[in-house]
Formats: sequence, structure tokens, C-alpha cells
Amino acid sequence: MGISKTLIKNARIFPGVENGQAKPVIEAGCALIKGNRFAYVGPEEACPAGRTEKVIDAGGRLLMPALVNAHTHSAMTLLRGVGGEKPLEVWLREHIFPLEERLVAQQARAGVALAMLEYLASGVTTINDMYMFPEETVKVVMEAGGRAMISNACVDFGKGEAQLADALAFHRDYHGAEEGRIRASVSVHAEYTTTPELVKKLVRATEGLDNIQHLHLSETQQEAAACRQRHGMSPVQYFHHLGLFNGPAVAAHCVAVDEEDMALLAQDGVRVAHAVISNLKLGSGIAPVPEMLSWGIPLTLGTDGAASNDNLDLWEEIKLTALLHKGAGRDATLISPAQVLEAATLGGARALGFDGLGLICEGWLADCVLMDLSLPNTLPAHDIPATLVYAAGSRNVSMTMSAGRVLYQDGEYLSLDEEKIKTRARQSAGELLGRDFSV
Amino acid sequence: MGISKTLIKNARIFPGVENGQAKPVIEAGCALIKGNRFAYVGPEEACPAGRTEKVIDAGGRLLMPALVNAHTHSAMTLLRGVGGEKPLEVWLREHIFPLEERLVAQQARAGVALAMLEYLASGVTTINDMYMFPEETVKVVMEAGGRAMISNACVDFGKGEAQLADALAFHRDYHGAEEGRIRASVSVHAEYTTTPELVKKLVRATEGLDNIQHLHLSETQQEAAACRQRHGMSPVQYFHHLGLFNGPAVAAHCVAVDEEDMALLAQDGVRVAHAVISNLKLGSGIAPVPEMLSWGIPLTLGTDGAASNDNLDLWEEIKLTALLHKGAGRDATLISPAQVLEAATLGGARALGFDGLGLICEGWLADCVLMDLSLPNTLPAHDIPATLVYAAGSRNVSMTMSAGRVLYQDGEYLSLDEEKIKTRARQSAGELLGRDFSV
Repeated sequence: MGISKTLIKNARIFPGVENGQAKPVIEAGCALIKGNRFAYVGPEEACPAGRTEKVIDAGGRLLMPALVNAHTHSAMTLLRGVGGEKPLEVWLREHIFPLEERLVAQQARAGVALAMLEYLASGVTTINDMYMFPEETVKVVMEAGGRAMISNACVDFGKGEAQLADALAFHRDYHGAEEGRIRASVSVHAEYTTTPELVKKLVRATEGLDNIQHLHLSETQQEAAACRQRHGMSPVQYFHHLGLFNGPAVAAHCVAVDEEDMALLAQDGVRVAHAVISNLKLGSGIAPVPEMLSWGIPLTLGTDGAASNDNLDLWEEIKLTALLHKGAGRDATLISPAQVLEAATLGGARALGFDGLGLICEGWLADCVLMDLSLPNTLPAHDIPATLVYAAGSRNVSMTMSAGRVLYQDGEYLSLDEEKIKTRARQSAGELLGRDFSV
Repeated sequence: MGISKTLIKNARIFPGVENGQAKPVIEAGCALIKGNRFAYVGPEEACPAGRTEKVIDAGGRLLMPALVNAHTHSAMTLLRGVGGEKPLEVWLREHIFPLEERLVAQQARAGVALAMLEYLASGVTTINDMYMFPEETVKVVMEAGGRAMISNACVDFGKGEAQLADALAFHRDYHGAEEGRIRASVSVHAEYTTTPELVKKLVRATEGLDNIQHLHLSETQQEAAACRQRHGMSPVQYFHHLGLFNGPAVAAHCVAVDEEDMALLAQDGVRVAHAVISNLKLGSGIAPVPEMLSWGIPLTLGTDGAASNDNLDLWEEIKLTALLHKGAGRDATLISPAQVLEAATLGGARALGFDGLGLICEGWLADCVLMDLSLPNTLPAHDIPATLVYAAGSRNVSMTMSAGRVLYQDGEYLSLDEEKIKTRARQSAGELLGRDFSV
């Protein structure tokens, strides 16, 4: 048995963005996929001949890299809309935490599966998930056929040691599973949920481990102020001094960061997951993204959980990241469409340690999306990156592929049972909230 | 021949929002439509019997008022994405105005028709359009079956008198046409494109006329500063003193307004069309919406034209209006989902002078939308207004009706020929920009 081959023909190919530069679109292109990687990407007439198991006629649609959602709490779809119009701290402590204490594994799994339907329908194949019951997330991602970095981030309300041990065991059991589609992360949740002792233990325990931190960092001014009061340092300085940034890290939010913080983040090579909608909804503020980009801090995008968004459509983060900072800074030249697309694709892939993911090029992993730009909202398309960022959305996603396998096409899920997942999600949300969501 | 009757059964009915209060959802509801108005709205068991020409089974979907897009330049779909990453003044003078000078009527019509496809697919039945060739806009709106207030706003580059005469003739010919579905407006474009003399003439000429002003007002700090330099007053004060606000008015943008301006707007009963995405994209800034709401200034929402957005999906304005001011003001309690939905429905209808539009109640005009909230992005729905604002989007729109007539259903247009419109739009954009958009 040879390696399976798939040919995507009759496509406009947008290979993606690297170092802020959009690669030129290949008109009348084709992409040959062998196994889970692109074997040829280029004009149709130069496509190597040979038998292929499957031919996908793109019908002139645009082939682009699949999206990476770099900060998620997938199971929180069950809590979609809970605690609306509340600031972060009230929202967390009065609404979210009490419900999460009652959450059981099966419910978490139902929530992650519902999230996966949203991810695939919006062209996301790869997520960076942090939540309880990470084994359940592994199962859903494996079933769906996507990729994930997964962590049940350590908190230290009296059981930090046990959590760290669990996280290390999870890393040992799952890191690199499914031909590398699953990566595990041993992480801290945030400054305000951990102690310096736990952070130090985690740093020691993960020395020499193939590990990428995924934490919440300086999400609000209140968080930063409380940290300064407790430790005499900003959250960025605090984790830097504890050695957490000796290895690679993805820091979600970074709203309340000053020049000194940004210098440290740049120096330590920390990557930032900008969760623009969540930051607005919880009243956390506006992250200084143009300044972070000027510092050379690599950017990624995340939806955060559904309870502070309230959907998981990364196209909304893409558009809003390109828009918000222009308006807030009163400068229409801030942040280019290419920079935002890089953050949503290659930037995310690199942040999560998925090598060879994020571009449509020979030898790269075959995670890609077909975008139908013939819908009214994207006609005419003067400039592909700008059309994708400002005009397109998940409604334009007509096919989502990961590792050479089609997972979503024309509204249908090929690896997941949509109706079963929705029914289970309704049931689980009903159990959790004591309400009937069957209608 | 009697009046035609349509029954929408098996629906959850969200009647809409009035005075900031969301009306309670009617579960297992039905709506009976006679002619162009709702004759019964309530529980299915109490629905008056009788023959109906047409029965629509909503299948448990949510019936809500159709949306009103209160600031549009529809034909600019042809310029979608032109002049990206440019501030308003450069964008207008170097990119948009030179292309608009070459625009001919047929192209404008093609652009408006393309816009209409976007409006209907996102549940918008009513627009407030300002652009050249307003007669073409009338034709498209009539063909589509929607509603519009239409103006070719007066500018005064040497031919203000002629423009005013044209606007008055347009008002005489079209105002109230199509059983009131078409309203005409005699308006000024903006302070920076007119002279005090023209404004005074317009005020005199429209005395006693059923007319609602639709103008651009204080869109940027630069505009406000230049007006102060020219006239020693803010743009709001300037138009107030010239008597433009003696009658009703819809003012788009109002980004650069201070407390004194807001007091005047409130006193004059001016309604504001918040174009949040356009304001961000052009780097214009963030309008003080929570403050305007505190002043009691009625809010409406608009997409503006596609060249500064770059799509016409009002659901994006809905979500972003609810989000942005929370983040910018670092207060998660600012602006409720109900306030935003009112702006997008009843608030818009009242601003444009469409009486009896904007709620699903007996005797009101039958402009409504069926929302499919069983898609993954809106499950579970804890709270209907919050789900609509934060989680839903145009992908959830499964039916759009105006005046009792279904215009869009399950991705199909019933009054317009989608393929023909797209082909003409590609051709027209190609002519205008000297490029081939046929692919």
C-alpha cells in the first residue's frame, strides 16, 4: 500500500504570510498532497502526473492555510453567554468558577465537541486549549482529525503539587501522540491563581522537557496592580524572574503591559495570544498590539472561551485585530492584513510548536481551507489578504482539511456527527445549569 | 380578491426591543400576516383560524424584527477594499473621489444590487442610502422588495444650487413611493463639502417638507478642528446654528463630539448612526456611544460603504457596538445587548421615519427574520438578546421577509437574480478599475 494522494485542482492558491510578507497568489494552481503533506504546490500545467486516490475540484475557490486558534477553553461552549456584562473578576469568581466546580468529564467532552464543530466550520484545524479534563479534549481532537496543544493549567488553591504531577503525567502520556497532532503542555494558569513556590517547582520539573508554556498574563490592569502589590513586580517581570520564560511560552492577553514588560517579552521570545473580543467583552481593555509588533513580539490570535466571546469564530478576531488598533490609535496604517493573517496561521503554528504548519508550500503539512470568494460579501476581490481580513468570514469557508484529510465540506462534517454532538451539548448544558436547552 | 395571508408557525418569537427593554420571547408562537402587516402575534393555540395562502413552518427557529442599516453608500461595493490602510481624508480625496467621478448610472445600479444581496442575506430589509444616481437605488430597492430612505446628498463644489434642485425634484418624484417603502431625503453631505449659503438654502427649501436629514457629522478630530477654524464652532454647533436640526436628522459617525455637542444633539433630537467598523478602519476613532446614550440621544447602526468596512454585514456592527465601548471604557457593564438590538431595529426604523416598523407586534409592518439558533455557534442559548448580539451572525439568518413577502430563504434570493447581479458587479468593477474581476 502506497501513501494516499489527493489532488486539489482548479484553485487560486494563497500560500500564506511569512515575516509580514504575503506570498503571491498562484492563479490556476493545484496542490498535490501525499500522506499528510503537500508534495507539489504550483501552476496546474506543471503538476506532476500520476495516480491520485482523490481529486478535489476547487472550482476557482481560494486555497489558503488553515487557521490556528492560539487561546481556547473549548469546553466552555456549554457556558456560552453565562455571566454577560460582568468584569473579569466577578465573571470568573461568581459565575464561571462555581459552575466549573460541578463540571464532570462527560460534560467537558460534550462542550469540546461542540467547540470543534465551530472550529472546523470556520477553517480552524489547530487549537491551544487549556481546561479541566484534558484527556477528553485529546479524544475529541483525535476523533475530529485536528491538532492541539493541550493543558490543564496548574492552579494552586491548596493542591498545586497534585496538579503539577497530573500535568507531568498527562505530558508523558500524550505529548506527540497521533503522529505529533497532539502536543501536551505543562503550564501555570496565571499569576493570581498560583504561588511562586508552584511556579518554581514547575520550572524545575519541566527542565529538559519538550514543553511550551500556555498561561494567562496581564489580562487586566487590576491583575497587574495586584501582582505589583503582592510581589513588587509586574506579572511579566514576576514570571521572568521565576524562570518561567526560560523556555518557549504563549502568553494570552497581555493587555496591561508597559514598555518594560514588552522589552522583557521580546527578550524572552514570549509569543502573545491576542484575544481581542474577550478583552473587550470583559472590559479588560485594549492590548498594545502595534507596540508589541514594533518590539518584534510574535503575535497569535485566540478566541478565548465561548463564555467571554460568545462564539469561536476566529474570523471575527482576524477582522477586529486589523480594525481595533487603527481606531484606538487613530491611525489607519497600523497593522496590515498580512500581519493579522500571519498571526492567525503561521504565527499560531510556530507558537504551539507545530513545525511545518502554516503555509501552503511543498513539504509543509496539508492543513488548508478553501474559501469561496464568489459570495456577495467578497466581490470584487481587489487584494487577497485585505479581502480575507476585512470582507470574508466563516461563511466563505467551504472546505477544511487537516493532514490531508477533509474534515468539513459545504456545511457537512466528515469526521464528526453534528446532530449527536449538538444533542449531547444541549443535555450537558442543561445538567450543568439546571435548565432545559432541548428546544 | 382578498388580502393575502401568510402564517408563520412553530416559531419562537422575539418581538424586539423598545425603550431599552427586550420584550419577552413567545415560545411555540405563530405570526399571522395580512397584506404587509402582522395581524396576530402570539401563542399558536390562540391563533385565529381561517384560510391562509401560505404557511411557513419555522421549525422552532427564532422570529425577530428585520434589521435596519442606517448609514450606507450601497454602490460602493464596487470599490470594496479600495484604498485600504489609509486615513479618511487621503482615502476620500486620493482613492474614492477620483473613481466616483468616473462612475456611470449602470455601474452604480450594479453596485447597489450587489449590496442588496448582502443586506438580505444578513436580515436587513431597510437601508438609509446616500450616493450618486439615487434613482438607480430606488429601482434596485423596489425590485428587491425592501425599504429605503434615499438621498444624493448635496455637495457644493461650485454646483450646490443644481444639486439642491435635483434633490428637491428627487424628493417630489419618489418620496412615499411603493406604498411608502421609498422615502427620499434632501440632505447635505457634510460640513467640509458644503458652504453655509447652501445649508441655509436647503433649510429654507425643505421647510414644511416631510424630510429627514442624513448627513456625515464630526467623523474625525481633523474634521471638527477644521470646522472650528473655519467657522469658530464645532460641526454640531455649526449645523445647529444654520437651522439644519430644526427638523429630524440622522447624523452618521459623531466620533469627535464633546459634552456641549452631545447636549445640542440631545436637545435637537438628532439621531446618531454609529458606523463602528468604518470609524475603526479609517482610523477615525471611537465614538462616545455610552455617553450619547446617557444623554438620551437615540442610536442607530450603519455599515457605511463597503470600501471602509469591507462588507455590509450589520451583525458585525451589532456585536462590535456591544463590545468596543466595554473595552475602550474598561467597563463590562457598558451598553446592553437590548440597547444594541434596539438600535439595529426599532431605533433605525424610527430614525428613517418608517412608522410601525421594528417590532413584531399586531398592526406592525411584517419585516422580520428567521434566525436558526440551532447552529453550533449559538448553542446553548441562555439569553436570547445576548445570544443574538454576541454569538449569532448572518450565517444564522435563514429567512428574510419585508412587507409580508419572503425575499431570502436558505441561501436563495426570491426577488433578485444572484448570478446575474454578481456578473454585472464584476463587469462594472472591472470597467471602473480597469482590471479583470471575472474570475
